[in-house]
Amino acid sequence: MSSTSDPYPESCPFCTNASAYPPFPTSPIPISPDRTKVSPNCWLLLSTPHVLAFLDILPISPGHILLCPRKHYAKLSDLHAPLPTPSPTWVEHQDLLDRRKTSEELGRWLPILSRALCQATGVEDWNVVQNNGVRAAQVVGHVHFHLIPRYQEGRGRGRGEVELRSWRMFGKGVREDLDEEEGDVVAERVREALRVEIGDGEGGRGRAKL
Amino acid sequence: MSSTSDPYPESCPFCTNASAYPPFPTSPIPISPDRTKVSPNCWLLLSTPHVLAFLDILPISPGHILLCPRKHYAKLSDLHAPLPTPSPTWVEHQDLLDRRKTSEELGRWLPILSRALCQATGVEDWNVVQNNGVRAAQVVGHVHFHLIPRYQEGRGRGRGEVELRSWRMFGKGVREDLDEEEGDVVAERVREALRVEIGDGEGGRGRAKL
Repeated sequence: MSSTSDPYPESCPFCTNASAYPPFPTSPIPISPDRTKVSPNCWLLLSTPHVLAFLDILPISPGHILLCPRKHYAKLSDLHAPLPTPSPTWVEHQDLLDRRKTSEELGRWLPILSRALCQATGVEDWNVVQNNGVRAAQVVGHVHFHLIPRYQEGRGRGRGEVELRSWRMFGKGVREDLDEEEGDVVAERVREALRVEIGDGEGGRGRAKL
Repeated sequence: MSSTSDPYPESCPFCTNASAYPPFPTSPIPISPDRTKVSPNCWLLLSTPHVLAFLDILPISPGHILLCPRKHYAKLSDLHAPLPTPSPTWVEHQDLLDRRKTSEELGRWLPILSRALCQATGVEDWNVVQNNGVRAAQVVGHVHFHLIPRYQEGRGRGRGEVELRSWRMFGKGVREDLDEEEGDVVAERVREALRVEIGDGEGGRGRAKL
């Protein structure tokens, strides 16, 4: 049926990001992460034991975010599986638990990232898209959710510094490389919104429990 | 920023489904549910205290599934929120816990439904799409994830009975009303695949724990 995971492929750019940015001991939101640790660069937004988020380097619109599992799973169907009876080996059991935790974390971070995206870009409308397989336009074979802000046509981001380049429907039009300066500005804005969301840092210290 | 929930609107078709099909005491997968309990009809696939799944009645391709929260939330940003400190009232606290549980359940059921979709339709590729706001093509103002099978162009579903009507990119082409007979066949196939997934019923009894 759907698919099984490939073995952890060295050529997978999301695995490269996962390996370069391990989870942080103090907060899931990185402080000024070095985007040049990997090539192509990674504008990291979030790093937990189970998931990562970063800017899409071929954004459909400014602020386009990707959320993915830390481990390499090819398709969404490789995640949350029931626990078989009788129990599998300890290693297999841990693997199944990881897949369950990852599914739940994806479910949890999608709304949080959505709010941070709206806060950072000023948009009120956005798409969440997750593609499985070539016929579904999956380009990187590592499960990932796109969060794509939808700006009002002919209108900027409402917050000034970064100009909106275009408004394109998913899968249509030319996707251009993320401008480095634009990436730096947008990523820091999303991280700051995330810190407020989870009550981390100056903006939100003591305000909320994740 | 993004949005707040509307009050539970009587005119919301997904709320109508949620109200007509309460969670079942014995299994999340309904047995021969009556699709005519609501108008338009509902081909129910899944009903839990926090989420529902049913066939899209304007399918982009055969087997097109919707997964949504039971409660009315307008956008994904209305889900999983941090718990504020100091604690809110008991009622507010329960509401926040509901939003968290719903997010996690959505994360959990997306992979399970994906596998059932592949099993029921024979496809290996599919899109998951969740739209927020008019500019993002959200039509029903109640959070929902589309699971859209992508058939090979010019090729049927590989399992015979239901003919593939067309293969369309999301948002392009004409969406036609779900054919009643096709809906019955596809829905029962998905439910049977879900029962096997969760170890419920003849196909999978005692096989797995959800």
